[in-house]
Amino acid sequence: IRCGFPEVIYCPGKTTEHIVKIFLLLAKKGNNVIASRADREVYDAIAAQLDHPGLRYEELARMVILDQCDMPPTEHYIAVVTAGTADLPVATEAKLTAETMGQRTEFVCDVGVAGIHRLIGHSRTMEILREASVVIVVAGMEGALASVVGGLVNSPVIGVPTSVGYGANFQGLSALLTMLNSCASGITVVNIDNGFGAGYAASMINARLEKQR
Amino acid sequence: IRCGFPEVIYCPGKTTEHIVKIFLLLAKKGNNVIASRADREVYDAIAAQLDHPGLRYEELARMVILDQCDMPPTEHYIAVVTAGTADLPVATEAKLTAETMGQRTEFVCDVGVAGIHRLIGHSRTMEILREASVVIVVAGMEGALASVVGGLVNSPVIGVPTSVGYGANFQGLSALLTMLNSCASGITVVNIDNGFGAGYAASMINARLEKQR
Amino acid sequence: IRCGFPEVIYCPGKTTEHIVKIFLLLAKKGNNVIASRADREVYDAIAAQLDHPGLRYEELARMVILDQCDMPPTEHYIAVVTAGTADLPVATEAKLTAETMGQRTEFVCDVGVAGIHRLIGHSRTMEILREASVVIVVAGMEGALASVVGGLVNSPVIGVPTSVGYGANFQGLSALLTMLNSCASGITVVNIDNGFGAGYAASMINARLEKQR
Amino acid sequence: IRCGFPEVIYCPGKTTEHIVKIFLLLAKKGNNVIASRADREVYDAIAAQLDHPGLRYEELARMVILDQCDMPPTEHYIAVVTAGTADLPVATEAKLTAETMGQRTEFVCDVGVAGIHRLIGHSRTMEILREASVVIVVAGMEGALASVVGGLVNSPVIGVPTSVGYGANFQGLSALLTMLNSCASGITVVNIDNGFGAGYAASMINARLEKQR
Amino acid sequence: IRCGFPEVIYCPGKTTEHIVKIFLLLAKKGNNVIASRADREVYDAIAAQLDHPGLRYEELARMVILDQCDMPPTEHYIAVVTAGTADLPVATEAKLTAETMGQRTEFVCDVGVAGIHRLIGHSRTMEILREASVVIVVAGMEGALASVVGGLVNSPVIGVPTSVGYGANFQGLSALLTMLNSCASGITVVNIDNGFGAGYAASMINARLEKQR
Amino acid sequence: IRCGFPEVIYCPGKTTEHIVKIFLLLAKKGNNVIASRADREVYDAIAAQLDHPGLRYEELARMVILDQCDMPPTEHYIAVVTAGTADLPVATEAKLTAETMGQRTEFVCDVGVAGIHRLIGHSRTMEILREASVVIVVAGMEGALASVVGGLVNSPVIGVPTSVGYGANFQGLSALLTMLNSCASGITVVNIDNGFGAGYAASMINARLEKQR
Amino acid sequence: IRCGFPEVIYCPGKTTEHIVKIFLLLAKKGNNVIASRADREVYDAIAAQLDHPGLRYEELARMVILDQCDMPPTEHYIAVVTAGTADLPVATEAKLTAETMGQRTEFVCDVGVAGIHRLIGHSRTMEILREASVVIVVAGMEGALASVVGGLVNSPVIGVPTSVGYGANFQGLSALLTMLNSCASGITVVNIDNGFGAGYAASMINARLEKQR
Amino acid sequence: IRCGFPEVIYCPGKTTEHIVKIFLLLAKKGNNVIASRADREVYDAIAAQLDHPGLRYEELARMVILDQCDMPPTEHYIAVVTAGTADLPVATEAKLTAETMGQRTEFVCDVGVAGIHRLIGHSRTMEILREASVVIVVAGMEGALASVVGGLVNSPVIGVPTSVGYGANFQGLSALLTMLNSCASGITVVNIDNGFGAGYAASMINARLEKQR
Ligand SMILES: Nc1ncnc2c1ncn2[C@@H]1O[C@H](COP(=O)(O)O)[C@@H](O)[C@H]1O
Ligand SMILES: Nc1ncnc2c1ncn2[C@@H]1O[C@H](COP(=O)(O)O)[C@@H](O)[C@H]1O
Ligand SMILES: Nc1ncnc2c1ncn2[C@@H]1O[C@H](COP(=O)(O)O)[C@@H](O)[C@H]1O
Ligand SMILES: Nc1ncnc2c1ncn2[C@@H]1O[C@H](COP(=O)(O)O)[C@@H](O)[C@H]1O
Ligand SMILES: [Mg+2]
Ligand SMILES: [Mg+2]
Ligand SMILES: [Mg+2]
Ligand SMILES: [Mg+2]
Ligand SMILES: [Mg+2]
Ligand SMILES: [Mg+2]
Ligand SMILES: [Mg+2]
Ligand SMILES: [Mg+2]
Repeated sequence: IRCGFPEVIYCPGKTTEHIVKIFLLLAKKGNNVIASRADREVYDAIAAQLDHPGLRYEELARMVILDQCDMPPTEHYIAVVTAGTADLPVATEAKLTAETMGQRTEFVCDVGVAGIHRLIGHSRTMEILREASVVIVVAGMEGALASVVGGLVNSPVIGVPTSVGYGANFQGLSALLTMLNSCASGITVVNIDNGFGAGYAASMINARLEKQR
Repeated sequence: IRCGFPEVIYCPGKTTEHIVKIFLLLAKKGNNVIASRADREVYDAIAAQLDHPGLRYEELARMVILDQCDMPPTEHYIAVVTAGTADLPVATEAKLTAETMGQRTEFVCDVGVAGIHRLIGHSRTMEILREASVVIVVAGMEGALASVVGGLVNSPVIGVPTSVGYGANFQGLSALLTMLNSCASGITVVNIDNGFGAGYAASMINARLEKQR
Repeated sequence: IRCGFPEVIYCPGKTTEHIVKIFLLLAKKGNNVIASRADREVYDAIAAQLDHPGLRYEELARMVILDQCDMPPTEHYIAVVTAGTADLPVATEAKLTAETMGQRTEFVCDVGVAGIHRLIGHSRTMEILREASVVIVVAGMEGALASVVGGLVNSPVIGVPTSVGYGANFQGLSALLTMLNSCASGITVVNIDNGFGAGYAASMINARLEKQR
Repeated sequence: IRCGFPEVIYCPGKTTEHIVKIFLLLAKKGNNVIASRADREVYDAIAAQLDHPGLRYEELARMVILDQCDMPPTEHYIAVVTAGTADLPVATEAKLTAETMGQRTEFVCDVGVAGIHRLIGHSRTMEILREASVVIVVAGMEGALASVVGGLVNSPVIGVPTSVGYGANFQGLSALLTMLNSCASGITVVNIDNGFGAGYAASMINARLEKQR
Repeated sequence: IRCGFPEVIYCPGKTTEHIVKIFLLLAKKGNNVIASRADREVYDAIAAQLDHPGLRYEELARMVILDQCDMPPTEHYIAVVTAGTADLPVATEAKLTAETMGQRTEFVCDVGVAGIHRLIGHSRTMEILREASVVIVVAGMEGALASVVGGLVNSPVIGVPTSVGYGANFQGLSALLTMLNSCASGITVVNIDNGFGAGYAASMINARLEKQR
Repeated sequence: IRCGFPEVIYCPGKTTEHIVKIFLLLAKKGNNVIASRADREVYDAIAAQLDHPGLRYEELARMVILDQCDMPPTEHYIAVVTAGTADLPVATEAKLTAETMGQRTEFVCDVGVAGIHRLIGHSRTMEILREASVVIVVAGMEGALASVVGGLVNSPVIGVPTSVGYGANFQGLSALLTMLNSCASGITVVNIDNGFGAGYAASMINARLEKQR
Repeated sequence: IRCGFPEVIYCPGKTTEHIVKIFLLLAKKGNNVIASRADREVYDAIAAQLDHPGLRYEELARMVILDQCDMPPTEHYIAVVTAGTADLPVATEAKLTAETMGQRTEFVCDVGVAGIHRLIGHSRTMEILREASVVIVVAGMEGALASVVGGLVNSPVIGVPTSVGYGANFQGLSALLTMLNSCASGITVVNIDNGFGAGYAASMINARLEKQR
Repeated sequence: IRCGFPEVIYCPGKTTEHIVKIFLLLAKKGNNVIASRADREVYDAIAAQLDHPGLRYEELARMVILDQCDMPPTEHYIAVVTAGTADLPVATEAKLTAETMGQRTEFVCDVGVAGIHRLIGHSRTMEILREASVVIVVAGMEGALASVVGGLVNSPVIGVPTSVGYGANFQGLSALLTMLNSCASGITVVNIDNGFGAGYAASMINARLEKQR
């Protein structure tokens, strides 16, 4: 079994019956399992059939997680930074994905660019960002935080545009374009609201570094 | 005559003959005159017919300006800030528009967010921004500078997205959406590359303050 | 405390519990507080914990407002103009934001361009517009009112495109583009339906003038 | 032969040889012929083969016109109104199309909404608009003139959005959306820069009225 | 009173109370009144306060209509043609608008281009189209019917794109672009689903012809 | 060697040297070779190195073709139909691709929907369409011809939207959406201006039928 | 009667009464009948009036099918391939359409490109694809499967982009563009989620081949 | 000096004089310098003033590079993979950026998905991809290669969509959306044609691993 590479089910468009069936099948392989974008009913249906201490539902991130791999804490870590509190669900999806892949994370919340001093003036936060092996920046509306963080750190930055906002943010298009056009070097981007993808890519980077240790 | 409200000709789509004719007509009213987005040939054609010490061509901003109003320097001023050097033509259009309207300006160049310390760590720059009656922020690519400046000052900020960039910046759309969705309060926006509009609106604000003195 | 610069919470994407907690925290600082895009339940939850005569819910604008700053009426004022009655919620958001920032407002309703004489032929309305220090124009559908008003006044105009309309208005895109491309000088624009932003920017302008008095 | 319904060739994408061949063929039928969006070389190539007093090139509108139908002047007429001088080529295409279809036109130039008094305060212009059987409004940038005219007259208004402008006008999209979303009743719209289509549709309406006389 | 030019209220975004108040006010002027895009509750609320034999609710078109003008039947008429049965609500809005404006209409249903012989091979239908003073074509999906009809008749054609369809029809954008780019001359277009606008514009044309009789 | 499946080089973005090198390499395999979207200089450079009677340049379609497979004429054939003469380059690309794949074609030109009788009233044309094993419809502007043809035949129809047109055709987007949303069954679509792709897919269908004979 | 060409009703936008009436009418002609995008209530309403052993409701595909044509099994067949399980409803619509047209199908599920070995490494699957007369590829998200399959087979491939996905997939636009721009030759595309259209076009191809046998 | 983090000038929108001035200034710091998107004239102007053996012009990638840091070869490497030969300029920009940052690269060219066996069936290529610390995939048209590679390797994949293609690829939008919506995990994306950004981000990852050794 490949601990560190969980099995993942993306739930939208699938029936609960179908999800449960796949989940149980994957669970048998011994690896961790994630069902993302899952309603609580999906969790209930799985829990009704799978009695395992490592099974839980994460409300905010809307994930069902089965933790059955015993992985030692990593020394290298991934920083997850959000611009606003409305970005929390997506940021949490990123964080939990990384953790289910066995990677240590540090979480920095609500440091959007309109109050840049909350970020720059705060030395503990700056230290967390600077020493991370990779930084995930989660931001909606204009998504400018990715550029600012990119300019502050020397590690790779993964931007996650969120659909938080209204009007001319066009469901996240605004933040997506912002991050793709960032004038800071070293920023790569995932799909709108794709906390999972960011957590996954960051874990690949962090895990390699850890292995190298 | 209304010194401070120049006559303005937008050149694209007009023949040089037509532009010259209008320019001469407007010049007679005694007010300042601007021909924007003008090639040097347009200037030459005007200069051939109008011999006036106040007539000049501004290469970078592509403006023909006729300065025939004698206006005292204002105490209040407008700050014009650019993210990169490629934003200079648009920023200069804003600056010259304001000056032709009799307003004092201060210019801050190349303080894009990827190097935020060039802005925040520089006390003279911060002072210029904080004491301006209105700040014009000119930025292309992801346009994040408007949000950062908006968070640093208490005066109104006018964002000018520029078409500087490529690919998913879609000729300025990216910076435009960024500025419209800014999470900083007090930011208003003009059309892509519209330095003129920003300079004009800022002048209206500054002029009122000045009159009040 | 900085009376005139209220604390603001943008509610969508936040849980009621979270909003209440932040609201109470901000309220303690002594400044006015606004929760925008708030359902009545949010108000009820706040009111259950905060017993203050200055706390109220504004149905139409969907704002919770806590008025605890005693500010004298300003002489300068902001005019808020709407094209149609369906633009009222957004216009009211602008008006209440300005008032919570201590600024006087004048309201002109339903003067859309299809009946231009209701605007131009009405001398009291024209006077209100012409003597305002700044004019906020709120319009959906084709949003042409901003251009017409911009041509009638010498003060800065802030356009607020609304999502009122259907089909090729694409949820406000039509009015947004109209205002950004206005051939009237001195118009700046905020995001679709962003009455708050317009009220905030206008207040910054008006407050400066007032201070100057 | 059907005088009043000219034969029309849309030139882009066709070789000059091809255009000449079609033009000569159509000319033989005895009806008027139009080649639209034609360069002067196209005219030269046609004139080299067709020696006819009614053949001419219209520079501004880029049309080759062969006038060989003798049509009496109509009493009813079509008003063609433009917002700015840069809209002249498109407006002229509309005017010449109508005239080649035998319809009388009246031309009103440069009455954009930013100076609404040039339109409303000018009684001769108002009379021309009000007594026309149909009004063609040609406008670029934000295209708001169509709505204003629509509110002033009781006859059908045909809007022609032009590609005049830059940035967020997206080559005429802005004016197109404005006109499609007009809050004035009785406005219909043709493609961006389609002066021909507007002139043709207006002529159909005017011709019917004339026949009825 | 101007019979033939009804008073119109566009309901979305207005409260029922507001609509009722305006409706009663307008009804007093003696002209016909239309409330478009109205739910049955709106009708019920109006009917509770206005007891008039000419008041009715049109389910399919979602219109409240008050018919209090006595207008003689016109001889000229407007043809309303639909591509599919799903286009009926919009087509009916057009038809009822025209009738409330006193104009005679003829209705042709379900003659989409995929079965072109239902249109071309049917002589009665062809006669109706050819003798109409103006033809309204209502079509969703690809909206090709407007072009076909435009090629068959010599009268002006008003295209109404509908939002019927899915996927890459983008809520009517497909049919809208089709009609704007029609290679048939004499077609003008209104907003997506805007049966009202088409009926209104067509009535203006038909009424003029009728008056001329 | 697989006669019937030519080797194909898509030229844009490649240097002439590069193209020549690949062409010569592919030519050696003995199969037919096509270089699409090729300037005449590309042909000249190839011809300078490859002296073969089957090598030719097709001006209109901008193709270099090397015909070195001897294929017997097929009985089944592909019909290629165009709406206008400006669609000829794309239609010819489709036709030549099919022929280089050994398939017989029939060409029907200039039968756009605005003159539907040129198509429906012409029995020889109708026969060609009805007896083809597959019909390629090439149309720009609104692209409605695909739907009409789809309704007339029982064979599969491949639509090729072209970029012919202007304004709201958005470089072929209009015709593309039209064809994708066609209400006629059995229509599939290729990329804008992709005559090659349509010719290739049609050849696959026709070749199978032929083999079956 | 034309067995193999079923009568089809597209349900959205039609009332149940209307659908039932058309269905019964079409059923009388003796051909198979399909009501697509139908809710179960539509089926119930039809079943209440039509007692026929060949009438059934297909839940996943949301189709009401009346099978009253007795058609022998075909030897040639259509392969239907899906990238993920969420694409099943659309793929099933394609499959059932083809079967109701009398064509044999083979179904291959869940072979998306992220696990390309499930496709390429599986010889039975490869054989099914290679021997099909036409392959329908149903894929959402990035829709890359169509290109991969197109490169593996020599038969025509019909791509069906689905709306499965989120964020920058823009309701299927992403997969649609992917398929239209495929670098594999011989791919044609239908509308987003249009399983019906793909099944119909594939059946036309397969049926011809079968007839030829 | 920070060898490994070159100074970078993005040339478009800057005058040659300006670029030369900045280049010389940055060169003095002792670090490597890159001028991207530079014409040969820019190189000539720099070379005229800077006589350094490490200065060169890279034609294909359009980069001026000044190599003045002596960096030992890394063991870890970055794989750069392209779908077609037209993607070479962008891929080379990525490769040279990485090399100027001191990182070893491996180059794999022309393995687009339409011929998937060129990739999967080639064991040396597979080995290069699987042992890279990060893989950069450069692809235009439909951009599907990123998903396929993502499914084959366990390392992070950075997708670079290119503008290669035409029609509905909309200057790279198609490939961009494909990569953002990839169903393979661990893919992050940079702007269209942004080889520089991909090379930079990949170098950050590779350099960390190397340092760890
Ligand atoms: N269904 C409709 N679609 C488009 N415009 C409409 C519609 N119904 C009414 N209108 C227009 O909206 C105006 C009334 O708007 P309001 O004053 O907001 O009720 C009328 O004068 C009409 O021009
Ligand atoms: N005009 C064209 N339009 C679309 N695809 C083409 C065209 N010409 C060639 N192709 C495709 O591009 C492939 C060759 O691409 P390349 O290897 O880059 O030359 C061929 O196998 C065809 O599938
Ligand atoms: N699911 C579907 N997607 C696309 N087109 C369909 C679908 N179902 C039916 N159609 C088409 O719509 C036509 C029926 O439309 P209607 O007459 O409005 O019911 C049929 O002839 C089909 O061409
Ligand atoms: N080809 C490129 N694409 C995207 N970003 C670039 C490119 N070249 C340079 N940059 C970025 O642009 C910055 C320099 O911009 P500037 O100061 O305007 O020259 C660098 O720090 C890089 O982050
Ligand atoms: Mg950095
Ligand atoms: Mg601020
Ligand atoms: Mg003004
Ligand atoms: Mg009117
Ligand atoms: Mg016609
Ligand atoms: Mg057919
Ligand atoms: Mg193939
Ligand atoms: Mg992988």
